Amino acid sequence: MRDTTTKDRLIESAAQVLHQRSYGSVGVDELCERAGVRKGSFYHFFNSKRDLALAVLEAHWDGFERQGLRPAREAERPLDRIAMVFEYAVTTLERARKNVGCVLGCPFGNLAVELSNIEPEIRAKIAEIFARLARFFEDALAAAVVAGDIGEIDVTRAASALVAYYEGIILLGKTSGETQVMRALAPGALLLTALGGEGRNTNARTARRPGARRSVQAPRKA
Amino acid sequence: MRDTTTKDRLIESAAQVLHQRSYGSVGVDELCERAGVRKGSFYHFFNSKRDLALAVLEAHWDGFERQGLRPAREAERPLDRIAMVFEYAVTTLERARKNVGCVLGCPFGNLAVELSNIEPEIRAKIAEIFARLARFFEDALAAAVVAGDIGEIDVTRAASALVAYYEGIILLGKTSGETQVMRALAPGALLLTALGGEGRNTNARTARRPGARRSVQAPRKA
Repeated sequence: MRDTTTKDRLIESAAQVLHQRSYGSVGVDELCERAGVRKGSFYHFFNSKRDLALAVLEAHWDGFERQGLRPAREAERPLDRIAMVFEYAVTTLERARKNVGCVLGCPFGNLAVELSNIEPEIRAKIAEIFARLARFFEDALAAAVVAGDIGEIDVTRAASALVAYYEGIILLGKTSGETQVMRALAPGALLLTALGGEGRNTNARTARRPGARRSVQAPRKA
Repeated sequence: MRDTTTKDRLIESAAQVLHQRSYGSVGVDELCERAGVRKGSFYHFFNSKRDLALAVLEAHWDGFERQGLRPAREAERPLDRIAMVFEYAVTTLERARKNVGCVLGCPFGNLAVELSNIEPEIRAKIAEIFARLARFFEDALAAAVVAGDIGEIDVTRAASALVAYYEGIILLGKTSGETQVMRALAPGALLLTALGGEGRNTNARTARRPGARRSVQAPRKA
């Protein structure tokens, strides 16, 4: 264990309470109390609760990058990298549920939803974090195209769709109070990797018509 | 215009402020002031802010059912019903953005994220509302299977994936502060209609391998 400074203690303690409750439900007094820090020290490090929340978001990102994205980047097959990030979210929230008794949700999505329209700086920070996650997906998708695992697609748009789906299934998990739904839906991510590919976006119906797929085995017009 | 009763005024006014801000950022006093209602009247109709929020959620659902789902049900092609609900969300949030200057987000998803772990009754109500939306998608998917527009799929799971994606793209719209991303991502919903279909969920990679699709036009092993 490394020595935690006062600033680190404040960030770690606030990261927990913001993830478990909400920004609106906790004040600077309680944040200080939980961290065992005097209010004077708080204002030495942070101008406001908002400033602390911005630091908390970066701390959550560091953990996500280290424990979620970095191991996933090492997967040989590009699409496995995407699946691993979804798997990471499910197992992390499953583990947390055993400890705290509820599905915490995404630390970024939670604050994005609560604060986007009332705290512009926090909204901008989370938009930046979502762009980093989209960049991870984009790299994996581009590698999958190069490897021939998927056809030519709109990687930017598909990456953005993956961020949306990632946030959406966590939101559903939180609302249901259990993680099963996340586990059931995670494989859907791979379907979104076709977004913008070969006219599918303009006419998904035709591309997915069962007859069209069956003709791979038994071509009718050969 | 129909006569609004005191109770209706409270619900309508709270619906607006909860959608634009957050549950934690508004108290009973302000809710009464905005509705032009005395506090005594508030407690005549509602036991608490939570009770009012539950009524607000049902009011939002009524509007969504009437303006979003009902017209969509009338579309002839089942998959168009799904696309229309996504289109409804985008246009509604676009219109609201012109009026209030920000992307309000989903009135259900907003409160789900903020309150699931601190207000169990609200969590349960939103889970019920998401189940109703999933039911709408399930009906459309089942009709699409019957019509032969899509192959056999796991309609329950695909419907749930559509709810997740719906919430996810709205969350991204809110975080980005604009609705463009929602418009760009909405077509991805149709890709999720393949969830659980014909082994795709167990090996999406193979099903989407470009060679497999190209062979529809030029079968190599014919």
